[in-house]
Amino acid sequence: MNYRFIIQYDGTRYDGWQRQKTTANTIQGKLEAVLSKMVGEPVEIKGAGRTDAGVHAKGQVANAHLPEGRTSVEIRNYMNQYLPEDICVMEVSEVSERFHSRLNAGEKIYQYRISTNMVKNVFEHKYIYDLNCSLDVKKMKEAAEYLSGEHDFQSFCAKKMKKSTVRRLSEIRLEQMPGELKITYRGNGFLYHMVRIMTGTLIEIGLHERIPQDMEKIIRAKERARAGAVAPAKGLTLLEIRY
Amino acid sequence: MNYRFIIQYDGTRYDGWQRQKTTANTIQGKLEAVLSKMVGEPVEIKGAGRTDAGVHAKGQVANAHLPEGRTSVEIRNYMNQYLPEDICVMEVSEVSERFHSRLNAGEKIYQYRISTNMVKNVFEHKYIYDLNCSLDVKKMKEAAEYLSGEHDFQSFCAKKMKKSTVRRLSEIRLEQMPGELKITYRGNGFLYHMVRIMTGTLIEIGLHERIPQDMEKIIRAKERARAGAVAPAKGLTLLEIRY
Repeated sequence: MNYRFIIQYDGTRYDGWQRQKTTANTIQGKLEAVLSKMVGEPVEIKGAGRTDAGVHAKGQVANAHLPEGRTSVEIRNYMNQYLPEDICVMEVSEVSERFHSRLNAGEKIYQYRISTNMVKNVFEHKYIYDLNCSLDVKKMKEAAEYLSGEHDFQSFCAKKMKKSTVRRLSEIRLEQMPGELKITYRGNGFLYHMVRIMTGTLIEIGLHERIPQDMEKIIRAKERARAGAVAPAKGLTLLEIRY
Repeated sequence: MNYRFIIQYDGTRYDGWQRQKTTANTIQGKLEAVLSKMVGEPVEIKGAGRTDAGVHAKGQVANAHLPEGRTSVEIRNYMNQYLPEDICVMEVSEVSERFHSRLNAGEKIYQYRISTNMVKNVFEHKYIYDLNCSLDVKKMKEAAEYLSGEHDFQSFCAKKMKKSTVRRLSEIRLEQMPGELKITYRGNGFLYHMVRIMTGTLIEIGLHERIPQDMEKIIRAKERARAGAVAPAKGLTLLEIRY
């Protein structure tokens, strides 16, 4: 039977989503260990978004094939009992045998949080990038318009890719709240570090280190070196996967 | 010169607000160490609310007399530079020599958060009591009405008191949100563990272990043993001090 999982995690302590040979300290590794323990044989769980080390998730989606004999609620409760307190299974449901969390994903929504307060944030410091200075959000919004739509995002990819680097960014929304700027990205796929490099570049524009029109040139260049610095992982959260 | 401080802290790691001879690990102790280092002589800082070990604050108010020669912003920045990341000075301002953060306080607002979700809360677990079952909030609201107003709150005090245990609770508000119940208490003063014992008693009513009318009897008894269990510290936050 194929099951779909909706998972939340605080990524602070982990080496990212993806299972690695060199470390057991990944989200996928922790989930697989608990599922394997439950069913008594090796289990593979496939995640929709391969979040980096330190990145959080409120709505990661994954799927795994498990032997029958347990209800969805029993599986959820078993997993939450044995998972560490910073990983939680919100929902388990039976899905069609053919469902694949990553290949069937339509759009992904990521959110990046930046503290623009002069003082640090005591309660949210694990989930927000402490820039601690104000940003010209108007200029950032101007620059964000160039990113919106379908482009070759090679300049915003930290890896050389053999496959296509064309992606569609359906929405990029900047919300200024008291002491905090939230940037929400919705798109059909994101390259390695793409959200964090777009964010880092937008921050440089918000600090007047670049002008909004630079964004168009950066996209056209298709060269990583032209874009801004990669923003820290801790400000990033995978919010939702849409199917 | 007398200064007023507005302070936030995550109380998880600390033995409460108040300086103690047996431990350096208190909020007051940390603040005094940094201020003493700054001015080169011992400094005493007085807090408006003596929060327990594990209790948090978003709007603790304190005052201290310091030698002149620094602006308020310089003092704030110095303190935030040397304080640990879970304590932050939000604001420093010069006040009248006679201002005393605790004696002049009018009302205090505390908030208690209870998770009523079936699954744990990955991001807020340090600030919310994981009850993880649903509560009859209607019954709890009925019971809360008995607490509202001026009463002798001896039954809700974990210490034998020589002084009066009469306090005025101006407001007690229960807000049910998805997966979470927030209880906000506003009053002219709170006895030792009073908010947490009122909360523990309300929870027992929400679980149908008692009926709302019991609250009236508990108040009249003036006996700690009659009230409910003390709710865990981590769900409690001092929100605001009014003057």
